[in-house]
Amino acid sequence: MSPLTPFGHAKRLLVGRPISSELAHHERLTKTTGLAVLSSDALSSVAYATEEVLRVLMVGGLAAMAYAPTIALLIAALLGIVAFSYRQTIKAYPQGGGAYIVAKENLGEWAGLSAAAALLIDYTLTVAVSVAAGVAAITSAFPSLHINRVELGLAFVGLLMLGNLRGIRESARLFALPTYGFIAVMCSLIVAGFYRTFAASMPPVAVVPVDVLPTFDTATLTTFALLTAFANGCTAMTGVEAISDGTPAFKPPEARNAAATLLVMAAVAITMFVGISVLADRLHAIPAVSETIVSQIGRAVFGGGTVLYYVLQVMTTLILVLAANTAYADFPRLASIVARDRFMPRQFMNQGDKLAFSNGIIALSAAAGGLIVVFGGDTHQLIPLYMIGVFLSFTLSQTGMFLKQRRAGVSGPPVLLNLFGAILTGIVLLIVGATKGPEGAWIVIVLIPCLVVVFRKTREHYDTVAHQLTLRDWTPPARRTNIVLVPVSGVQRAVVHALRYSESISTDVRAVYVNDNPQAVAALQAEWKTWGGSVKLVVLDSPFRSVMEPLLAYIALIEKERTNAYITIVLPEFVPSRWWHHLLHNQRALLIKGALLFRPNVVVTSVPFHLS
Amino acid sequence: MSPLTPFGHAKRLLVGRPISSELAHHERLTKTTGLAVLSSDALSSVAYATEEVLRVLMVGGLAAMAYAPTIALLIAALLGIVAFSYRQTIKAYPQGGGAYIVAKENLGEWAGLSAAAALLIDYTLTVAVSVAAGVAAITSAFPSLHINRVELGLAFVGLLMLGNLRGIRESARLFALPTYGFIAVMCSLIVAGFYRTFAASMPPVAVVPVDVLPTFDTATLTTFALLTAFANGCTAMTGVEAISDGTPAFKPPEARNAAATLLVMAAVAITMFVGISVLADRLHAIPAVSETIVSQIGRAVFGGGTVLYYVLQVMTTLILVLAANTAYADFPRLASIVARDRFMPRQFMNQGDKLAFSNGIIALSAAAGGLIVVFGGDTHQLIPLYMIGVFLSFTLSQTGMFLKQRRAGVSGPPVLLNLFGAILTGIVLLIVGATKGPEGAWIVIVLIPCLVVVFRKTREHYDTVAHQLTLRDWTPPARRTNIVLVPVSGVQRAVVHALRYSESISTDVRAVYVNDNPQAVAALQAEWKTWGGSVKLVVLDSPFRSVMEPLLAYIALIEKERTNAYITIVLPEFVPSRWWHHLLHNQRALLIKGALLFRPNVVVTSVPFHLS
Repeated sequence: MSPLTPFGHAKRLLVGRPISSELAHHERLTKTTGLAVLSSDALSSVAYATEEVLRVLMVGGLAAMAYAPTIALLIAALLGIVAFSYRQTIKAYPQGGGAYIVAKENLGEWAGLSAAAALLIDYTLTVAVSVAAGVAAITSAFPSLHINRVELGLAFVGLLMLGNLRGIRESARLFALPTYGFIAVMCSLIVAGFYRTFAASMPPVAVVPVDVLPTFDTATLTTFALLTAFANGCTAMTGVEAISDGTPAFKPPEARNAAATLLVMAAVAITMFVGISVLADRLHAIPAVSETIVSQIGRAVFGGGTVLYYVLQVMTTLILVLAANTAYADFPRLASIVARDRFMPRQFMNQGDKLAFSNGIIALSAAAGGLIVVFGGDTHQLIPLYMIGVFLSFTLSQTGMFLKQRRAGVSGPPVLLNLFGAILTGIVLLIVGATKGPEGAWIVIVLIPCLVVVFRKTREHYDTVAHQLTLRDWTPPARRTNIVLVPVSGVQRAVVHALRYSESISTDVRAVYVNDNPQAVAALQAEWKTWGGSVKLVVLDSPFRSVMEPLLAYIALIEKERTNAYITIVLPEFVPSRWWHHLLHNQRALLIKGALLFRPNVVVTSVPFHLS
Repeated sequence: MSPLTPFGHAKRLLVGRPISSELAHHERLTKTTGLAVLSSDALSSVAYATEEVLRVLMVGGLAAMAYAPTIALLIAALLGIVAFSYRQTIKAYPQGGGAYIVAKENLGEWAGLSAAAALLIDYTLTVAVSVAAGVAAITSAFPSLHINRVELGLAFVGLLMLGNLRGIRESARLFALPTYGFIAVMCSLIVAGFYRTFAASMPPVAVVPVDVLPTFDTATLTTFALLTAFANGCTAMTGVEAISDGTPAFKPPEARNAAATLLVMAAVAITMFVGISVLADRLHAIPAVSETIVSQIGRAVFGGGTVLYYVLQVMTTLILVLAANTAYADFPRLASIVARDRFMPRQFMNQGDKLAFSNGIIALSAAAGGLIVVFGGDTHQLIPLYMIGVFLSFTLSQTGMFLKQRRAGVSGPPVLLNLFGAILTGIVLLIVGATKGPEGAWIVIVLIPCLVVVFRKTREHYDTVAHQLTLRDWTPPARRTNIVLVPVSGVQRAVVHALRYSESISTDVRAVYVNDNPQAVAALQAEWKTWGGSVKLVVLDSPFRSVMEPLLAYIALIEKERTNAYITIVLPEFVPSRWWHHLLHNQRALLIKGALLFRPNVVVTSVPFHLS
C-alpha cells in the first residue's frame, strides 16, 4: 500500500483501517444484531407515542382519555397489518429497496420516486427528531445544558456519522446494549405494572394536581380531535419499514433473517405500545410539561429514585438518540439504490473502504444537522413534519404489493390484506395531512414533488450524457497535432521545467509573453538564448494590462488557422509545502484555467514545481 | 476583444468598461477632487470629536466643560504640527507610502511594518466606524430601520466597494458634493453662531433639563479624566495622513498639488473643530443620547425645522458614510506598496482593468464588513479601537522624518518641529493606550505585532521561493521521456478523446483499468481492439475496491523503473452546460488530482469533453 497523505492519516484515525471486499459478508447483520441496528427507530417511538395520543384526548378530560387503549389497539392492528405486508415485501424483494422498489416496479417511476423522496425525507427527520428528543432528555436532567441543545444535537449527529463511517458491525455492537436494555426494562415495567394494577390494585399516579387539569368538557371531544389523537399515535409506526429496506445487510439467507427479525420487532413494538397505553389509562397518567408519561408510569410502578427507574430513563434516552442510527443504515442504502437508477448523483453508489456508503452518510448528517439548526433543536416543531413521508411510502408500498400479487394471479387473504393495508394507510395519510398539515407537514408536502423533479432532472442529464458518450454510430475524431503554449512572465526554474516538459509532449511549443514594458522584452529575449531550447518566444501587446485578453485572442487565432490541432496550455504551478502558501501563488494559473474551461480542444496542464 | 464569459458580462455591468493604460493620467486627482476624495475622513471627525471631549468633561459639570475650547486648541495645535510634518513628507516622498515608507527607510523594516500594520487596521476601522456612524444617523431619523443597521452597514460597504472598483475619477465626482456641502454648511454654522453669540448675545441652548444633568462635582475632574478627554478629542486627527499617502494619485506635479491640498484640509479641519468646540461652550451644549452636539448647535443657531438645519444633518450623515471612501483610496494603495516589497501577497499589486487595486478594495470591504457584523454595527464599540493605529503611525512617521533630516545634515526649525511632533504624538499614543486600552484598544495592540509577523513570514516565503527559482548556478533538468497513463473505467467517447489526445503527446500511452469484475475485463479487452489504437491496456487488481491505491502503486512502480521520465495522467473531464451538473461528474478526477498533487514529475491533465 502506498504511503498515506496527511488527510489519509486523519481518515484512518477517525474511521479505522480499510476492510477488504472479500470480508464483506463478515460485516453482515445477524437476527440479533439486525434487531439492534434496525429496530431502534420503531421501538423508541413507544417512548412518546402514547403521550402524543393523550395530549389530544386530555381536552376531553379523564373520560375521554379512557379512549387511549382503544386507539392504541387500533394502531397496533394497523402496525401488525403493515408489518405483515412488509414481510411479504422482504420475500418478494430480498435485494432490498423497500417502498421505492415496490412502488417503481408496480406503480411506475413517478410513484417510485415519490416513495424515495418520502423515505429520504423521513430518514433525515428520524435523525433530527430522535437526536433532538435524546438531547431534550439529557437537558431535562441537566438544565444548564439547555442553551447548548443545538450544539449537543450536532455533536450527536457527528458521532453517529463517524460511527457509521467506521462500518456496520462495530455499530451493531455499539447499539445492542441500548436496544436490548430498552426492551428489557420496558417489558419489566409492563409486567410489573400489570401485576400491580390488575392483581394488587395499586392506586393511580398523581403528578398533576387536579386543579391544574383542563376543564373536563366531553363536548369538545369531536371526531376531528379523535382523528388527531389517532394521527398522533401513528408516530408509533415510524421505522417499521427499516428492516425491509435493510434486507441485504443481513447474513444469508437475507430474506428469511430479515423477515424473522421484522416479526419480532413488530411483536415487541405492539406489546410495548399497547402495554404503556393500558398502564397510562389504569394509572390515570396525564401529559405534563414537567414529566413524560413513561416516566410517570415508571415512578408509579418501580418507585421514584429506585435503580430500575433510573435504568428506564437512561435506556429511553439512549434508544432515542440511537434510533437515529436506523436512518444511518437505510438512508445511504436507499440513496445508493436510487443512484444506481441514475436519479441521484452517482457518488451515492460509492462504497468506501469500510464498506459503508460514505457520501450518503455524510449527506444525511448534513441534512439532519441543518434541520436541528433551523428548528433550534426543538422536537415538537419537528414532529409534525415526520409522518407524511412514513404514510406516503406505506401507502405506495402496499398498493404496489397488492397490484403485484394480482398481476401474478395470487388471490386470497394475502392480497386482501395488502389491499386493506393500502386503503387503511391511505386513509391515515389523509388524516395526517389534514390534522398535521397546518402544523408544519406542508413543508414536506411541498418538498416531496420538488425532490421528484430533481430526481427526474438528474436522470435526464445522465441519459443525455450517456447518449453523447455512446460509441454506436460514432465517427472517432481524426488524428490531431498538438500545439503547446506556455504563458511566461519571465524565466526562472519553474518556467524552465514547464518548457522542458512541453518539449517532451510536442515539437510545436510556443512561450507566450504579454508585453507590458519594452525593456523587459529585450531582457527576456536575451535570456531566451540560454534557456529557451527549441521553444519559440511569442510576444503579445496588452493595452489594458490584462494578461488574459491577448492570450485568449492568440488562442482564437491559432484555432482559426489550425482547425485540426489540440492546443495545450502548459502552466508552471507551485506546490508549496504549507497550505497557506497557496494563497501566495498560482492565482494567474487559476484565472487562465477558468477562462479556458469552456473551449473545446484546449487542454490546460499544470506542471508542478515543488517548493521546499 | 474576445467574447465575454457570463462572469465577464456581470463584471462589466457592475464596474463598467475597462480603461486603457494610456488613459491612466486622466484619472488623476486635481486639488479640488483630491480634497473631496481624501479629506472626508479628517473633516467628518469634526462631527463627533467635540462631543467625545464633552462626554468625559461633563462628569465635572458645566465648569469643567469650559475646558473644552482649551483642549480643542491644544488638539488643533497638534493637528497643525502633524500636518506640517506630513507636508515635508510629501515633498521628501512624492511617490507616496506615508508612514510605512518613512518609517521603513529611516527606522528600519520592523518599524515600517508596524506602521503598515497600524495603517491597514486603521483604514479598515475608518470604513467600519464611518459607515456605522452614518447608519446610526439614518436610523436616528428612521427608528424602524434600527434593527437592520448591520444589513444597512453592509449595503453601504458594498456600494463603496463597487464605486471604487469602477475607478477613481467617478468616485471623486460622487464625493465632491457631500465634502464641499459639509464644509459650506459647517462654516455657515460657525460664522452665524459666532455672530449671534458674540455680537447678538444669543441665549444658551437647553436640550437637557437641568435636573437630568450629572451632579456637578469638580473634584471628579482628575488629571486622568482630562487626559481621557484629550485622547477622545484626538479622534479629530484621524485621516490627516490620507493625503500624504495618496500623493501619487494627484495630477503632476503630484507633490505640490498634494501639499497644497493638505494645508487647505488642515486649515478647514482646525477651523471647524475649534469653532464647534467654542460654540458648544458658549451655548452650553451638553452630550445627550437623544441629540448630537452638532445638531444641538445647529438647532440653536439655524433654528429647528429650518432648511439649513436639515441640510446640516444630511451633509453630516453623507460625509460620515463617505469618509469611509478615504480608506478606499489608501488601503489598496498601501497594500500594493507593501506587496511590492513582498510582505503581502502579490495579488495586492494587480491593477484591474479600471486602474483600481481590485484585490485591496475587496479585502478592505471584507474586513470592514466583518467588523460591522462582529460589533453589531455599534459605533461606540468600534471607536476605542481606532486611535492606536493613527498615533502609532504618526509617531513612527515623524520620528523617521526627524532622523532623515538629521542624517541629511538639515537643522533648524523643521527638524525641531519633527522632533517635537514625534514626542507629542508619542505621548498621545501612550495616553490613548492607557485610557482606551481597557475599552477595546488592546485588540489592536495585540493585532499589530501579529500582522507584522505575518508580513515577515510572507516575505520569508517569497525570498525562499525566489532562491529556489534562481537560474544562477543551476543545472537544468535532463531531457526526459513522457509516459502517459489514462485511468479508464470503460470505453465511451470522452475516454476515446482522452486516448487520442494522449497519443498526440507520447508514444508510450497506457490505459489503466482497476479490476473489480473479471467479466467486465473481458468485455473491455474486446472493445479495446476497436478503440484502443496504439494504447496498451493495463489491468490492475483492487482488493479494497479503491481505484486510487492500485493506481498509486502502479505509478510508484513506474517511477522506480524509469527514474528519468515524466508521468502524465490524462483524465477525461466532463464540462457540463449547467453549473449544477458539475455535482454529477468528475468526482474521481478530483480525487486523483488531489492524491497526485504532491508527487514530483507527475503531471495531471484533464482533457475536456463538452456536454451540450
